[in-house]
Amino acid sequence: MINTNPLREILKEKKTFHNNRGMNLENDINLSNQYYVDTKQAFIYKKPTPIKIVKVDYPTKSNRVGNIKIKEAYFESPSTTDYNGLYKGKYIDFEAKETNNSEYFPLENIHPHQIKHLKNIYDNGGICFIIIRFTKYNKTYLLFAKEFFEFLDKNERKSIPISYFEEKGYEIKELYSPRLDYLKIVKEYGGIIDEKEK
Amino acid sequence: MINTNPLREILKEKKTFHNNRGMNLENDINLSNQYYVDTKQAFIYKKPTPIKIVKVDYPTKSNRVGNIKIKEAYFESPSTTDYNGLYKGKYIDFEAKETNNSEYFPLENIHPHQIKHLKNIYDNGGICFIIIRFTKYNKTYLLFAKEFFEFLDKNERKSIPISYFEEKGYEIKELYSPRLDYLKIVKEYGGIIDEKEK
Repeated sequence: MINTNPLREILKEKKTFHNNRGMNLENDINLSNQYYVDTKQAFIYKKPTPIKIVKVDYPTKSNRVGNIKIKEAYFESPSTTDYNGLYKGKYIDFEAKETNNSEYFPLENIHPHQIKHLKNIYDNGGICFIIIRFTKYNKTYLLFAKEFFEFLDKNERKSIPISYFEEKGYEIKELYSPRLDYLKIVKEYGGIIDEKEK
Repeated sequence: MINTNPLREILKEKKTFHNNRGMNLENDINLSNQYYVDTKQAFIYKKPTPIKIVKVDYPTKSNRVGNIKIKEAYFESPSTTDYNGLYKGKYIDFEAKETNNSEYFPLENIHPHQIKHLKNIYDNGGICFIIIRFTKYNKTYLLFAKEFFEFLDKNERKSIPISYFEEKGYEIKELYSPRLDYLKIVKEYGGIIDEKEK
Protein backbone atom coordinates (compact mmCIF):
# COMPACT_ATOMS: atom_id res chain seq x y z
CA MET A 1 0.00 0.00 0.00
CA ILE A 2 0.92 3.66 -0.32
CA ASN A 3 2.74 5.05 2.69
CA THR A 4 0.67 7.35 4.83
CA ASN A 5 2.39 10.54 5.74
CA PRO A 6 2.24 10.83 9.54
CA LEU A 7 2.80 14.56 9.53
CA ARG A 8 -0.16 15.14 7.26
CA GLU A 9 -2.25 12.73 9.29
CA ILE A 10 -1.53 14.81 12.35
CA LEU A 11 -2.14 18.06 10.56
CA LYS A 12 -5.49 16.76 9.43
CA GLU A 13 -6.52 16.57 13.07
CA LYS A 14 -5.07 19.95 13.89
CA LYS A 15 -6.26 22.02 11.01
CA THR A 16 -5.18 25.24 12.66
CA PHE A 17 -1.61 24.28 11.82
CA HIS A 18 -0.41 25.04 8.33
CA ASN A 19 -3.77 25.23 6.71
CA ASN A 20 -2.09 25.65 3.35
CA ARG A 21 -0.21 22.36 3.45
CA GLY A 22 -2.42 20.62 0.98
CA MET A 23 -4.73 18.13 2.67
CA ASN A 24 -7.31 18.12 -0.11
CA LEU A 25 -4.81 18.27 -2.92
CA GLU A 26 -2.96 15.39 -1.31
CA ASN A 27 -6.16 13.39 -1.11
CA ASP A 28 -6.94 14.09 -4.78
CA ILE A 29 -3.45 13.02 -5.82
CA ASN A 30 -3.59 9.84 -3.72
CA LEU A 31 -6.92 8.91 -5.31
CA SER A 32 -5.53 9.59 -8.78
CA ASN A 33 -2.43 7.49 -8.04
CA GLN A 34 -4.64 4.62 -6.92
CA TYR A 35 -6.57 4.96 -10.19
CA TYR A 36 -3.32 4.79 -12.17
CA VAL A 37 -2.33 1.60 -10.31
CA ASP A 38 -5.79 0.04 -10.79
CA THR A 39 -5.78 0.81 -14.51
CA LYS A 40 -2.11 -0.29 -14.79
CA GLN A 41 -1.01 3.00 -16.26
CA ALA A 42 1.67 3.99 -13.79
CA PHE A 43 2.95 3.41 -10.29
CA ILE A 44 3.41 6.60 -8.31
CA TYR A 45 3.56 6.69 -4.51
CA LYS A 46 4.15 8.90 -1.54
CA LYS A 47 7.34 8.87 0.49
CA PRO A 48 7.29 8.78 4.30
CA THR A 49 8.16 11.97 6.17
CA PRO A 50 11.70 11.91 7.54
CA ILE A 51 11.83 11.92 11.34
CA LYS A 52 14.78 12.56 13.63
CA ILE A 53 14.78 10.11 16.52
CA VAL A 54 16.22 11.29 19.82
CA LYS A 55 15.18 8.74 22.48
CA VAL A 56 14.22 5.10 22.14
CA ASP A 57 13.07 2.40 24.57
CA TYR A 58 14.47 -1.02 23.80
CA PRO A 59 12.29 -3.97 24.62
CA THR A 60 13.94 -6.43 27.01
CA LYS A 61 12.47 -9.68 25.75
CA SER A 62 11.63 -9.21 22.12
CA ASN A 63 13.93 -7.87 19.46
CA ARG A 64 11.14 -7.28 16.98
CA VAL A 65 11.63 -3.86 15.43
CA GLY A 66 7.93 -3.03 15.85
CA ASN A 67 8.36 -3.31 19.61
CA ILE A 68 10.99 -0.61 19.80
CA LYS A 69 9.23 2.42 21.28
CA ILE A 70 10.32 5.84 20.10
CA LYS A 71 10.03 8.20 23.09
CA GLU A 72 11.28 11.42 21.58
CA ALA A 73 11.48 12.44 17.94
CA TYR A 74 10.98 15.44 15.68
CA PHE A 75 9.89 16.01 12.12
CA GLU A 76 12.78 16.80 9.83
CA SER A 77 12.80 19.18 6.89
CA PRO A 78 12.01 17.11 3.84
CA SER A 79 15.11 16.43 1.77
CA THR A 80 13.15 14.97 -1.14
CA THR A 81 9.80 15.62 -2.76
CA ASP A 82 6.59 13.95 -1.61
CA TYR A 83 5.85 11.80 -4.62
CA ASN A 84 7.79 9.63 -6.99
CA GLY A 85 7.28 6.64 -9.17
CA LEU A 86 7.37 5.50 -12.75
CA TYR A 87 5.47 5.58 -16.00
CA LYS A 88 6.57 3.13 -18.72
CA GLY A 89 9.93 2.75 -17.02
CA LYS A 90 10.51 6.50 -16.86
CA TYR A 91 11.21 8.11 -13.51
CA ILE A 92 8.59 10.61 -12.29
CA ASP A 93 9.03 12.93 -9.32
CA PHE A 94 7.01 15.86 -8.03
CA GLU A 95 6.04 18.06 -5.14
CA ALA A 96 2.44 19.18 -4.53
CA LYS A 97 1.32 22.23 -2.56
CA GLU A 98 -1.78 24.26 -1.90
CA THR A 99 -1.88 27.97 -1.25
CA ASN A 100 -4.61 30.27 0.06
CA ASN A 101 -2.93 33.17 -1.62
CA SER A 102 -4.97 34.60 -4.48
CA GLU A 103 -2.14 36.14 -6.50
CA TYR A 104 1.01 34.10 -6.12
CA PHE A 105 2.56 30.91 -4.78
CA PRO A 106 5.06 31.66 -1.98
CA LEU A 107 8.31 29.81 -2.65
CA GLU A 108 8.95 29.33 1.08
CA ASN A 109 6.50 26.41 0.76
CA ILE A 110 9.13 24.44 -1.12
CA HIS A 111 12.27 23.69 0.87
CA PRO A 112 15.69 24.36 -0.77
CA HIS A 113 16.55 20.66 -0.32
CA GLN A 114 13.49 19.76 -2.34
CA ILE A 115 14.49 22.12 -5.14
CA LYS A 116 17.97 20.56 -5.13
CA HIS A 117 16.34 17.13 -5.29
CA LEU A 118 14.22 18.16 -8.30
CA LYS A 119 17.37 19.52 -9.97
CA ASN A 120 19.10 16.15 -9.50
CA ILE A 121 16.12 14.37 -11.05
CA TYR A 122 16.02 16.83 -13.93
CA ASP A 123 19.77 16.52 -14.60
CA ASN A 124 19.45 12.73 -14.71
CA GLY A 125 16.71 12.76 -17.31
CA GLY A 126 13.70 12.22 -15.05
CA ILE A 127 10.26 13.72 -15.52
CA CYS A 128 9.74 16.24 -12.73
CA PHE A 129 7.33 19.01 -11.94
CA ILE A 130 5.38 20.79 -9.22
CA ILE A 131 1.60 20.70 -8.77
CA ILE A 132 0.23 23.88 -7.20
CA ARG A 133 -3.37 24.50 -6.20
CA PHE A 134 -4.75 27.97 -5.66
CA THR A 135 -7.53 27.11 -3.23
CA LYS A 136 -9.40 30.43 -3.61
CA TYR A 137 -10.17 29.65 -7.24
CA ASN A 138 -9.84 25.87 -6.85
CA LYS A 139 -7.44 25.91 -9.79
CA THR A 140 -4.62 23.37 -9.94
CA TYR A 141 -1.58 23.76 -12.18
CA LEU A 142 1.23 21.51 -13.25
CA LEU A 143 4.51 23.31 -13.92
CA PHE A 144 7.35 21.25 -15.37
CA ALA A 145 10.78 21.56 -13.73
CA LYS A 146 12.29 23.26 -16.77
CA GLU A 147 9.87 26.21 -16.48
CA PHE A 148 10.10 26.15 -12.68
CA PHE A 149 13.91 26.43 -12.79
CA GLU A 150 13.69 29.10 -15.48
CA PHE A 151 11.59 31.18 -13.12
CA LEU A 152 14.01 30.65 -10.22
CA ASP A 153 16.99 31.57 -12.41
CA LYS A 154 15.46 34.73 -13.85
CA ASN A 155 13.66 36.11 -10.83
CA GLU A 156 14.74 37.47 -7.49
CA ARG A 157 11.24 37.36 -6.04
CA LYS A 158 10.14 34.87 -3.44
CA SER A 159 6.86 33.90 -5.05
CA ILE A 160 5.56 32.76 -8.43
CA PRO A 161 2.55 34.76 -9.69
CA ILE A 162 -0.52 32.81 -10.79
CA SER A 163 -0.08 34.35 -14.25
CA TYR A 164 3.19 32.41 -14.66
CA PHE A 165 1.34 29.13 -14.01
CA GLU A 166 -1.33 30.18 -16.51
CA GLU A 167 1.25 31.03 -19.15
CA LYS A 168 3.92 28.34 -18.64
CA GLY A 169 2.05 25.62 -16.78
CA TYR A 170 -0.96 23.42 -17.51
CA GLU A 171 -4.23 23.51 -15.65
CA ILE A 172 -5.31 20.12 -14.32
CA LYS A 173 -9.09 20.00 -14.45
CA GLU A 174 -10.91 18.12 -11.69
CA LEU A 175 -12.72 15.04 -12.88
CA TYR A 176 -14.63 12.27 -11.23
CA SER A 177 -12.08 9.56 -11.92
CA PRO A 178 -9.20 10.07 -11.89
CA ARG A 179 -9.74 13.09 -9.68
CA LEU A 180 -6.70 14.94 -11.05
CA ASP A 181 -5.46 13.46 -14.29
CA TYR A 182 -1.97 14.95 -14.12
CA LEU A 183 -0.53 11.98 -16.01
CA LYS A 184 -2.46 13.09 -19.10
CA ILE A 185 -0.42 16.32 -19.11
CA VAL A 186 2.78 14.36 -18.52
CA LYS A 187 1.96 12.09 -21.47
CA GLU A 188 1.12 14.99 -23.79
CA TYR A 189 3.70 17.56 -22.82
CA GLY A 190 6.31 15.77 -20.70
CA GLY A 191 8.54 14.87 -23.63
CA ILE A 192 7.93 11.13 -23.29
CA ILE A 193 8.54 9.25 -26.51
CA ASP A 194 6.75 5.94 -26.69
CA GLU A 195 9.11 3.12 -27.74
CA LYS A 196 6.57 1.99 -30.36
CA GLU A 197 6.35 5.44 -31.94
CA LYS A 198 10.05 5.53 -32.71
CA MET B 1 21.51 14.96 0.93
CA ILE B 2 20.62 11.32 1.24
CA ASN B 3 18.14 10.56 3.98
CA THR B 4 19.58 8.72 6.93
CA ASN B 5 17.58 5.74 8.03
CA PRO B 6 16.88 6.26 11.73
CA LEU B 7 16.23 2.60 12.35
CA ARG B 8 19.61 1.62 10.99
CA GLU B 9 21.22 4.44 12.92
CA ILE B 10 19.79 3.00 16.11
CA LEU B 11 20.68 -0.54 15.19
CA LYS B 12 24.26 0.57 14.62
CA GLU B 13 24.43 1.49 18.27
CA LYS B 14 22.74 -1.68 19.42
CA LYS B 15 24.51 -4.24 17.31
CA THR B 16 22.96 -7.10 19.25
CA PHE B 17 19.74 -6.37 17.42
CA HIS B 18 19.35 -7.77 13.93
CA ASN B 19 23.01 -8.18 13.22
CA ASN B 20 22.12 -9.27 9.69
CA ARG B 21 20.37 -6.05 8.74
CA GLY B 22 23.15 -4.75 6.58
CA MET B 23 25.02 -1.95 8.28
CA ASN B 24 28.20 -2.39 6.23
CA LEU B 25 26.41 -3.13 3.02
CA GLU B 26 24.29 -0.02 3.54
CA ASN B 27 27.40 2.06 4.07
CA ASP B 28 29.00 0.66 0.91
CA ILE B 29 25.87 1.41 -1.10
CA ASN B 30 25.59 4.94 0.28
CA LEU B 31 29.23 5.62 -0.65
CA SER B 32 28.65 4.22 -4.13
CA ASN B 33 25.53 6.33 -4.58
CA GLN B 34 27.49 9.43 -3.58
CA TYR B 35 30.12 8.48 -6.16
CA TYR B 36 27.41 8.18 -8.84
CA VAL B 37 26.09 11.64 -7.95
CA ASP B 38 29.60 13.15 -7.90
CA THR B 39 30.45 11.65 -11.29
CA LYS B 40 26.99 12.60 -12.64
CA GLN B 41 26.17 9.03 -13.65
CA ALA B 42 22.97 8.49 -11.71
CA PHE B 43 20.91 9.75 -8.80
CA ILE B 44 19.93 7.01 -6.37
CA TYR B 45 18.90 7.69 -2.79
CA LYS B 46 17.57 6.11 0.35
CA LYS B 47 13.99 6.45 1.53
CA PRO B 48 13.16 7.30 5.14
CA THR B 49 11.82 4.51 7.36
CA PRO B 50 8.05 4.77 7.84
CA ILE B 51 7.09 5.49 11.44
CA LYS B 52 3.69 5.23 13.07
CA ILE B 53 3.10 8.19 15.34
CA VAL B 54 0.92 7.65 18.41
CA LYS B 55 1.40 10.68 20.67
CA VAL B 56 2.47 14.20 19.85
CA ASP B 57 3.10 17.35 21.89
CA TYR B 58 1.97 20.50 20.15
CA PRO B 59 3.94 23.64 20.86
CA THR B 60 1.80 26.45 22.25
CA LYS B 61 3.57 29.43 20.75
CA SER B 62 5.18 28.27 17.57
CA ASN B 63 3.56 26.37 14.78
CA ARG B 64 6.85 25.40 13.18
CA VAL B 65 6.65 21.72 12.26
CA GLY B 66 10.17 21.12 13.64
CA ASN B 67 8.89 22.10 17.09
CA ILE B 68 6.24 19.40 17.22
CA LYS B 69 7.58 16.78 19.63
CA ILE B 70 6.72 13.17 18.95
CA LYS B 71 6.28 11.47 22.34
CA GLU B 72 5.33 7.97 21.24
CA ALA B 73 5.94 6.27 17.91
CA TYR B 74 6.87 2.89 16.46
CA PHE B 75 8.73 1.67 13.42
CA GLU B 76 6.38 0.39 10.75
CA SER B 77 6.95 -2.50 8.41
CA PRO B 78 8.48 -1.06 5.28
CA SER B 79 5.98 -0.89 2.43
CA THR B 80 8.59 0.03 -0.15
CA THR B 81 12.20 -0.84 -0.77
CA ASP B 82 15.10 1.09 0.73
CA TYR B 83 16.58 2.62 -2.39
CA ASN B 84 15.29 4.22 -5.52
CA GLY B 85 16.36 6.71 -8.09
CA LEU B 86 17.14 7.11 -11.75
CA TYR B 87 19.74 6.41 -14.37
CA LYS B 88 19.39 8.22 -17.72
CA GLY B 89 15.73 8.87 -16.96
CA LYS B 90 15.02 5.20 -16.20
CA TYR B 91 13.53 4.30 -12.85
CA ILE B 92 15.74 2.16 -10.56
CA ASP B 93 14.54 0.47 -7.36
CA PHE B 94 16.16 -2.07 -5.08
CA GLU B 95 16.37 -3.62 -1.66
CA ALA B 96 19.70 -4.51 -0.01
CA LYS B 97 20.25 -7.06 2.74
CA GLU B 98 23.08 -8.84 4.50
CA THR B 99 22.91 -12.34 5.89
CA ASN B 100 25.23 -14.26 8.23
CA ASN B 101 23.91 -17.50 6.84
CA SER B 102 26.53 -19.42 4.87
CA GLU B 103 24.22 -21.40 2.59
CA TYR B 104 21.12 -19.39 1.82
CA PHE B 105 19.36 -16.04 2.07
CA PRO B 106 16.27 -16.27 4.33
CA LEU B 107 13.31 -14.68 2.54
CA GLU B 108 11.84 -13.48 5.84
CA ASN B 109 14.35 -10.61 5.52
CA ILE B 110 12.27 -9.12 2.73
CA HIS B 111 8.78 -8.06 3.74
CA PRO B 112 5.83 -9.16 1.52
CA HIS B 113 4.95 -5.46 0.99
CA GLN B 114 8.43 -4.90 -0.38
CA ILE B 115 8.05 -7.80 -2.81
CA LYS B 116 4.70 -6.36 -3.94
CA HIS B 117 6.41 -3.00 -4.39
CA LEU B 118 9.15 -4.56 -6.55
CA LYS B 119 6.44 -6.31 -8.59
CA ASN B 120 4.73 -2.97 -9.23
CA ILE B 121 8.02 -1.46 -10.37
CA TYR B 122 8.74 -4.45 -12.60
CA ASP B 123 5.26 -4.36 -14.17
CA ASN B 124 5.68 -0.68 -14.97
CA GLY B 125 8.95 -1.16 -16.79
CA GLY B 126 11.36 -0.10 -14.06
CA ILE B 127 14.78 -1.58 -13.39
CA CYS B 128 14.58 -3.46 -10.12
CA PHE B 129 16.68 -5.95 -8.24
CA ILE B 130 17.91 -7.09 -4.83
CA ILE B 131 21.47 -6.83 -3.54
CA ILE B 132 22.36 -9.59 -1.08
CA ARG B 133 25.63 -9.90 0.83
CA PHE B 134 26.74 -13.17 2.37
CA THR B 135 28.91 -11.77 5.15
CA LYS B 136 30.73 -15.05 5.88
CA TYR B 137 32.35 -14.99 2.46
CA ASN B 138 32.04 -11.23 1.99
CA LYS B 139 30.37 -11.91 -1.35
CA THR B 140 27.74 -9.51 -2.68
CA TYR B 141 25.29 -10.42 -5.42
CA LEU B 142 22.85 -8.50 -7.56
CA LEU B 143 19.78 -10.50 -8.58
CA PHE B 144 17.41 -8.83 -11.06
CA ALA B 145 13.68 -8.89 -10.22
CA LYS B 146 12.90 -11.23 -13.12
CA GLU B 147 15.09 -14.00 -11.69
CA PHE B 148 13.99 -13.16 -8.14
CA PHE B 149 10.31 -13.55 -9.07
CA GLU B 150 11.07 -16.71 -11.04
CA PHE B 151 12.52 -18.22 -7.90
CA LEU B 152 9.51 -17.16 -5.80
CA ASP B 153 7.08 -18.58 -8.41
CA LYS B 154 8.83 -21.93 -8.76
CA ASN B 155 9.83 -22.60 -5.18
CA GLU B 156 7.98 -23.27 -1.98
CA ARG B 157 11.06 -22.82 0.18
CA LYS B 158 11.59 -19.83 2.39
CA SER B 159 15.17 -19.14 1.43
CA ILE B 160 17.26 -18.66 -1.71
CA PRO B 161 20.43 -20.79 -1.80
CA ILE B 162 23.72 -19.04 -2.54
CA SER B 163 24.07 -21.26 -5.62
CA TYR B 164 21.03 -19.52 -7.16
CA PHE B 165 22.76 -16.15 -6.76
CA GLU B 166 25.91 -17.60 -8.31
CA GLU B 167 23.99 -19.02 -11.24
CA LYS B 168 21.34 -16.37 -11.93
CA GLY B 169 22.79 -13.28 -10.25
CA TYR B 170 25.92 -11.21 -10.71
CA GLU B 171 28.66 -10.83 -8.15
CA ILE B 172 29.49 -7.21 -7.33
CA LYS B 173 33.21 -7.02 -6.59
CA GLU B 174 34.36 -4.58 -3.94
CA LEU B 175 36.48 -1.77 -5.27
CA TYR B 176 38.03 1.32 -3.83
CA SER B 177 35.75 3.78 -5.63
CA PRO B 178 32.93 3.21 -6.13
CA ARG B 179 32.88 0.71 -3.30
CA LEU B 180 30.20 -1.45 -4.95
CA ASP B 181 29.78 -0.68 -8.63
CA TYR B 182 26.32 -2.20 -8.96
CA LEU B 183 25.43 0.30 -11.69
CA LYS B 184 28.00 -1.36 -13.95
CA ILE B 185 25.95 -4.57 -13.80
CA VAL B 186 22.73 -2.61 -14.37
CA LYS B 187 24.29 -0.98 -17.44
CA GLU B 188 25.56 -4.25 -18.87
CA TYR B 189 22.76 -6.65 -18.02
CA GLY B 190 19.79 -4.52 -16.97
CA GLY B 191 18.30 -4.29 -20.45
CA ILE B 192 18.94 -0.56 -20.74
CA ILE B 193 19.18 0.60 -24.34
CA ASP B 194 21.06 3.81 -24.75
CA GLU B 195 19.13 6.28 -26.91
CA LYS B 196 22.24 6.86 -29.04
CA GLU B 197 22.72 3.17 -29.73
CA LYS B 198 19.30 2.76 -31.35
